[in-house]
Amino acid sequence: MSRTLQSPPEPVQDPEEARAAFRSGGTSPTAGWAPGYAQANLIAVPADWAYEMLLFCQRNPKPCPVLDVTDAGSWSTPLAPDADLRTDLPRYRVWEHGELTAEPTDVVEHWRGDLVSFLIGCSFTFESALADAGVPLRHVEQGRNVSMYVTARPCRPAGRLRGPMVVSMRPVPPRHLAAAIKESSLMPAVHGGPVHCGDPAGLGIEDLGRPDFGDPVTAEPDDIPVFWACGVTPQAAVMASRPPFAITHAPGRMFLTDARDEQYRVA
Amino acid sequence: MSRTLQSPPEPVQDPEEARAAFRSGGTSPTAGWAPGYAQANLIAVPADWAYEMLLFCQRNPKPCPVLDVTDAGSWSTPLAPDADLRTDLPRYRVWEHGELTAEPTDVVEHWRGDLVSFLIGCSFTFESALADAGVPLRHVEQGRNVSMYVTARPCRPAGRLRGPMVVSMRPVPPRHLAAAIKESSLMPAVHGGPVHCGDPAGLGIEDLGRPDFGDPVTAEPDDIPVFWACGVTPQAAVMASRPPFAITHAPGRMFLTDARDEQYRVA
Repeated sequence: MSRTLQSPPEPVQDPEEARAAFRSGGTSPTAGWAPGYAQANLIAVPADWAYEMLLFCQRNPKPCPVLDVTDAGSWSTPLAPDADLRTDLPRYRVWEHGELTAEPTDVVEHWRGDLVSFLIGCSFTFESALADAGVPLRHVEQGRNVSMYVTARPCRPAGRLRGPMVVSMRPVPPRHLAAAIKESSLMPAVHGGPVHCGDPAGLGIEDLGRPDFGDPVTAEPDDIPVFWACGVTPQAAVMASRPPFAITHAPGRMFLTDARDEQYRVA
Repeated sequence: MSRTLQSPPEPVQDPEEARAAFRSGGTSPTAGWAPGYAQANLIAVPADWAYEMLLFCQRNPKPCPVLDVTDAGSWSTPLAPDADLRTDLPRYRVWEHGELTAEPTDVVEHWRGDLVSFLIGCSFTFESALADAGVPLRHVEQGRNVSMYVTARPCRPAGRLRGPMVVSMRPVPPRHLAAAIKESSLMPAVHGGPVHCGDPAGLGIEDLGRPDFGDPVTAEPDDIPVFWACGVTPQAAVMASRPPFAITHAPGRMFLTDARDEQYRVA
């Protein structure tokens, strides 16, 4: 097990305290934070792109399971009634015509009255279930952000929106593979079971050591790479489809909700 | 076990043959037809209502799990590539400003170029799993349509769309209750587990013998009424919200897809 050079801040257990820490300028990746509470990806687009974004999510439910959609201009959600979506994430990305133009720690200055925000399920939500089932989480052990990759697998387009599926990868020891698949499959609202296991070439990924988002994570020799559909996929769609404006979370730096993980577990 | 006065036609096993039978004018309820293949509710609305309908479905996923959304004007779906959504259901309902204006066996004459069609999961899809687990299906035994009721439970509104949740009810013997709950819960895309069991007053339903849609079904003395969220809910929203135009299936007379039930089963 290795550590990054700069030790990350100790994860906060309570989601409201965690949001307060991020509102005050904390920028840590959120894996391991507020365990037991669901985390969410953020994508906010102008209202005249909202139908296509919602349809894109409906047509690609593995990478884009929708947990909530706000009314235009609103920065609040029933998933965390006290939260402010403009300030309570560790870091944001601002996009103009598909180009990344800023990575601020809040987006109060960038907000627009016509923005519709989509909160999309995150695989961090099933990590508590994986940990409870004894599955080691290498990126959490190593204090790193999860590794994410743009794949060669296209999403089903919706109107003007198209783009490739993005995946997160966790190295899983063979004896824990069944539990990892079972536990995640029981949570379809937060990406569900993996989309691929083993050879990364199956998804068109060339080098696991060079993720497109997040950090490289050190695997043990017999670990199997397991790939889950990832809520960064709408950002890849923004890059490919170039809507005039969008705001997203920064990969791995999620919105922490007050919803319990179990709420998204089947049966 | 009793029979309705008029014996229903023998259910057809193959979904393509079933659609052909309905295209030729067959009007039978579809419970028990093409077992093993997913059935779907239809709601088609003008394009300028499509975002609100999709958002209504996202906000009310138990009654309105979306299986597919067509492009405006299109009458075809990947769920059954050879099908024509205008002709292949046993019976339709045409709505103007929330009023039922026609119940034709096809809607070729009523079709409009701006209609967006939503195909929504149907509890008939998990009936094969219930039957395989030994759960008796009283309405199928009795050759009747399933009983459906408008509840006192409001859906979460979306823009101009609001309305109550509609449920289907199946009388389940106590010894089969656990299997009925488990098997349906494993299929969240087709309504998932029940929303209520037992006293119908819990949903504001006054008389099980007088369903709002479908047929009354005879229960055995110790059967427990089990209620599942129902894809007729968008029709209740049409009645309550009065969009200028809509086309739906007639309750219990579903669209038969080529998708296998198992495709909607978790893990």
